[in-house]
Amino acid sequence: MPNRTVFFVSDGTGITAETFGNSILAQFAIKPRHIRRPFIDSIDKAEKVVSEINATFDAEGVRPIVFITLALDDAHQVLTSPRCKGFVMDMFKAFVEPLEVEFGLKSNHRIGRFSDAAKSQEYNDRIEAINFSLAHDDGQSAKNLEAADVILVGVSRSGKTPTSLYLAMQHGIKAANYPLIPEDFDRGALPASLAPHKRKCFGLTIDPDRLSQIRNERRPGSKYAAIENCRAEVREAETMMKRAGISWLSSTHKSIEEIATTILRDIRPDRLIY
Amino acid sequence: MPNRTVFFVSDGTGITAETFGNSILAQFAIKPRHIRRPFIDSIDKAEKVVSEINATFDAEGVRPIVFITLALDDAHQVLTSPRCKGFVMDMFKAFVEPLEVEFGLKSNHRIGRFSDAAKSQEYNDRIEAINFSLAHDDGQSAKNLEAADVILVGVSRSGKTPTSLYLAMQHGIKAANYPLIPEDFDRGALPASLAPHKRKCFGLTIDPDRLSQIRNERRPGSKYAAIENCRAEVREAETMMKRAGISWLSSTHKSIEEIATTILRDIRPDRLIY
Repeated sequence: MPNRTVFFVSDGTGITAETFGNSILAQFAIKPRHIRRPFIDSIDKAEKVVSEINATFDAEGVRPIVFITLALDDAHQVLTSPRCKGFVMDMFKAFVEPLEVEFGLKSNHRIGRFSDAAKSQEYNDRIEAINFSLAHDDGQSAKNLEAADVILVGVSRSGKTPTSLYLAMQHGIKAANYPLIPEDFDRGALPASLAPHKRKCFGLTIDPDRLSQIRNERRPGSKYAAIENCRAEVREAETMMKRAGISWLSSTHKSIEEIATTILRDIRPDRLIY
Repeated sequence: MPNRTVFFVSDGTGITAETFGNSILAQFAIKPRHIRRPFIDSIDKAEKVVSEINATFDAEGVRPIVFITLALDDAHQVLTSPRCKGFVMDMFKAFVEPLEVEFGLKSNHRIGRFSDAAKSQEYNDRIEAINFSLAHDDGQSAKNLEAADVILVGVSRSGKTPTSLYLAMQHGIKAANYPLIPEDFDRGALPASLAPHKRKCFGLTIDPDRLSQIRNERRPGSKYAAIENCRAEVREAETMMKRAGISWLSSTHKSIEEIATTILRDIRPDRLIY
């Protein structure tokens, strides 16, 4: 099934259509070709997309799969008309209509949940969280740590930075991160600036073999990347976190999405924006 | 309708359930209370969630809305059984079953598309893109700019940093960003290191009033934040981008998701990972 083409058509960014469509497609052993068509908010634009879908059908001989999130009636009608030769998965219709009954309310046909977000408090909080996480990346600043929602700790390259940025961007969480470095191990204590914030700390650990592999990509053949050194650092870090009563997880087989979701489940879930 | 509670239940991270559920809920004038229950991958965990749902029903007197993405049959059966008093929106059933027919394939009941991602090339490319975007934030480094997929330019606080990080994190795009500063305007030319990469540049501009407001939050009463200065910088930046033939958009009323989607539509859409 290498020839199946998938369209994601939305009157907004199409992020929902794609996130959802990818989840559904992950249930099948296929490798589809993706085509995204965001901001389809007029009949003309919708007609153009239908022409593309039909041309794809004619060229490939199988119906393209078409995930649509269209709140606007005009564009919706064009994509769901019999002229469109795609196999249309209409994400809104299947769920908005039953909810209208359940709520006893009409839906408002609002385009995209990201629209004109610039004015919302929620959005501004997210941007502020991103700036906070950047300013507090890799122990750069101990200033204002009391404003952090969470402080990630762990050895260099255990996944702290991408996880912090993801928590900020996706959830508006102010996530600082602090490396545990050989000097901390020599001293046998957490960095002093973390001591008052132990309860907000969350640890990341990693399999030493995987760590050595990642570090070797950046500094091939260095002591920093050597397996013995990685083993020692990971052991020391885990001992230190255990002694300090900091919960941790292993990032070895986890994506940043999974790490972030686990952290959120453990720490302050009420502060969540998204 | 302030009392309606919404559960997002998934055997993976629940990101799809939430993204999708939020899009659907945005169609209604309600402000629901969110409860996320990720990693529900056993009958026991599923039973616990059903108890929570039923307790919520008993306490609030209306059915909680329950968005589920459950690829595992066991957990799925528990949540969709008549014992569960929630109003269940089953995202997979409605779409996976028709696709099984269309593809002539059985679905593989794979949990979450983010699972064990650590091993995939796609995932490693995303992490590399995040590291690249961080190293090339705010014109920090002109090294290796030829590896950038896109270089965002614009005045300070026009939205370049969060957009670069979003492009990297969500789409695996290596997005550098470069500020346009008063010295560039005095010289009347783009930063020298950008000259060989003009075709990869994309500009962000912003309404001077909004810019002044944002800058005043960081440096109240400064010349940097003064409206006259913001007006002059924005005018100079737009003139410079026009002269250099760089496309741009205004970030004033756009979220980072919308900005990123627009940039991707214009620049190298084939390089997209997600």
